[in-house]
Amino acid sequence: MLQRLQRLEDLEAIRRLKHRYLNACDRKDIEAIRSCFAAGDIHIDFGPIGLFRTREAFLAIYQALACHAAVIDLHHGANEEIDLVGTDEATATWALYYFNLDANSGLTRQLGGTYEDRYRRTDMGWQIVSSVARMHSAVVGRTLEDSQ
Amino acid sequence: MLQRLQRLEDLEAIRRLKHRYLNACDRKDIEAIRSCFAAGDIHIDFGPIGLFRTREAFLAIYQALACHAAVIDLHHGANEEIDLVGTDEATATWALYYFNLDANSGLTRQLGGTYEDRYRRTDMGWQIVSSVARMHSAVVGRTLEDSQ
Amino acid sequence: MLQRLQRLEDLEAIRRLKHRYLNACDRKDIEAIRSCFAAGDIHIDFGPIGLFRTREAFLAIYQALACHAAVIDLHHGANEEIDLVGTDEATATWALYYFNLDANSGLTRQLGGTYEDRYRRTDMGWQIVSSVARMHSAVVGRTLEDSQ
Repeated sequence: MLQRLQRLEDLEAIRRLKHRYLNACDRKDIEAIRSCFAAGDIHIDFGPIGLFRTREAFLAIYQALACHAAVIDLHHGANEEIDLVGTDEATATWALYYFNLDANSGLTRQLGGTYEDRYRRTDMGWQIVSSVARMHSAVVGRTLEDSQ
Repeated sequence: MLQRLQRLEDLEAIRRLKHRYLNACDRKDIEAIRSCFAAGDIHIDFGPIGLFRTREAFLAIYQALACHAAVIDLHHGANEEIDLVGTDEATATWALYYFNLDANSGLTRQLGGTYEDRYRRTDMGWQIVSSVARMHSAVVGRTLEDSQ
Repeated sequence: MLQRLQRLEDLEAIRRLKHRYLNACDRKDIEAIRSCFAAGDIHIDFGPIGLFRTREAFLAIYQALACHAAVIDLHHGANEEIDLVGTDEATATWALYYFNLDANSGLTRQLGGTYEDRYRRTDMGWQIVSSVARMHSAVVGRTLEDSQ
């Protein structure tokens, strides 16, 4: 029974980790994003955005691309399928709804796709050790007015 | 172990409460929305929609704004991060995808943002005692046709 | 306590089942979709798409409608409210965000609505035995460019 309870707690913790990552991306909270990934060698493959071997390498690109006032992003996770692998590792598929508004031009960009992730239990709790994102749906639009 | 089990049950119950609230908003089910909030003094801060101290005050505005046949709404929650605070209170951050279609004009309005909530265990189960919504992404569009 | 643990495991398993179904629809993975539904007599009512009494009948239409390279779909579940009914049955309401991009024409179609589902524990784990989908929000658009 303890093992079954632990499994449920781990599923909640991993779901929470990914939610924390996605919310931190919307807030552009660099320290919160950093804490979602394990230190040292990891694997981040975000397709056209790049392939990164450390969280620092990813954060450098993330800051260059996203950390501008005109970049308004939504990262909403859906449809998670999380599998524990042994006691200290897990994998998951997530669907992603991504939406970007360029506050300068009013152009919008909606992407839909998936993450294939791997997580590890570390001294810092569950962390992401591999994340492969592939988008299969891309649509460009323009807001009719800036009406917030 | 009982405490750990109780914690998991509370997380499920709180997630369910917010889902019930969001679905009730899409259905415009006033009684279901009312039951999600605690009776008496609460705190609802929905930015430009208003600041409310009771569920009745909020429901009066909600009915005036939303309860028309031409107002077609989606409220989809994502990325919840729920924290229990003691045994009978909890806080959460949620991401929101909101989409409105005006069936008369064909105009659409998409909002993305967050809720910062506080919940309390009452005689009616978990209920919302504080909810602060802030939208950071707003896009206006128009459907090319009404093609349902 | 075992019953309470079992209930939480069942909620996770049912959430996972629906997520597996929705992800399989995005991937157009026919075998994965099939495995989400029970064999034999079931009830699938997808409104204008049709009414089906077996998973094979549904899959035949699904393949005809969806399994083309130009059909790019997102099926994202939200706001699930799952209720166990006895030990081997359950019901749920889900919100759905559906988005289709026609890669040939650049036309897009967004639907929002709900599923009312019934699940049964079978020898194959939890499976869908009834699914009624109703969309209440439909918007047609066009991508400004194909920019993936």
